[in-house]
Amino acid sequence: MSTTLNDAALDQLFRNARTYNRFLPQAVDDATIATLYDLLKWGPTAFNAQPARYIVLRTPEARQRLAPALSSNNREKTIAAPVTVIVAHDKRFFDQLPQQFPAYDAKPLFEANPALVETTAARNSALQGAYLILAARALGLDAGPMSGFDAATVNQEFFPDERHAVNFIVNLGYGDPATLFARSPRLSFDQAVTLL
Amino acid sequence: MSTTLNDAALDQLFRNARTYNRFLPQAVDDATIATLYDLLKWGPTAFNAQPARYIVLRTPEARQRLAPALSSNNREKTIAAPVTVIVAHDKRFFDQLPQQFPAYDAKPLFEANPALVETTAARNSALQGAYLILAARALGLDAGPMSGFDAATVNQEFFPDERHAVNFIVNLGYGDPATLFARSPRLSFDQAVTLL
Repeated sequence: MSTTLNDAALDQLFRNARTYNRFLPQAVDDATIATLYDLLKWGPTAFNAQPARYIVLRTPEARQRLAPALSSNNREKTIAAPVTVIVAHDKRFFDQLPQQFPAYDAKPLFEANPALVETTAARNSALQGAYLILAARALGLDAGPMSGFDAATVNQEFFPDERHAVNFIVNLGYGDPATLFARSPRLSFDQAVTLL
Repeated sequence: MSTTLNDAALDQLFRNARTYNRFLPQAVDDATIATLYDLLKWGPTAFNAQPARYIVLRTPEARQRLAPALSSNNREKTIAAPVTVIVAHDKRFFDQLPQQFPAYDAKPLFEANPALVETTAARNSALQGAYLILAARALGLDAGPMSGFDAATVNQEFFPDERHAVNFIVNLGYGDPATLFARSPRLSFDQAVTLL
């Protein structure tokens, strides 16, 4: 039976979690990346389609390949991050549906409808990117998600086959609290929620 | 200092969490909905833009308004759910940026670029919908997200002002484990992740 997680967990996941621009000089090892995927993969997607693909840039050299695509305020901090993940989607995600969603053959539905492929890939890879952020926090990591980059340049550099496309980018590491800015506010309940 | 959450928490959020189609006859009260928003609101969005708006359908009558838009396999279970949330976005989210992101005036950036408004709203309201799913699980609730509906019909019924648009829909409640199907598989690490 599920109950509410304790306050420390809710703080770590949501209430005290922050977007970090600078990280402590502490590596994110491959075992942690494997553990991260083994959590985030369970998040729900439409038809269990799991369109997201994750390119993990572990070295400054690998991250340097991103530099020309990044906005000026994202460049330096990304090169300096312990790990950067390109959250992308596979435009042929539906080829795997017969294995991933055995309950119903949804592959023809997507083969016949490129617009549905596009919206499903964009929406669900975004969901999976959010699962990555929260799974990272659940493991004691901090995330620095960003969408300030030129998508065409990222796609050209990392996905020359044109089969994949970037959604957004997330720096990962152990955040340096000394570098945090003041926290921005949030919309009130009444601004964001309508009860019917 | 953050550490890894305990196994019970990781199970509840990710490893044992399931998408539910049927819920126990246990209400989701307004206090729980308020607590849910007070968690999910902290999730990161680009420029802290928070484009998502949440329409919470608490009664069968309110959910009945959704029925004509839902695919046949989503209709009955949604009418029967304790609560249904329409995750939408506000196309004028950037009007609130001067208050929500005081560090930098991003409003003109969006005013001049309708395509950027569209992709930012779609991506970030999807992220916020994922935060809602995981915040619900953190509170011991279960979620039943779905995208099998006619968006134009939902928008016409709930957003006649054309200022808002649906992204996806989530049933919430306390899942009935007796109604679960066998769990679908997930892509292996090597299918989804590339280490560079």
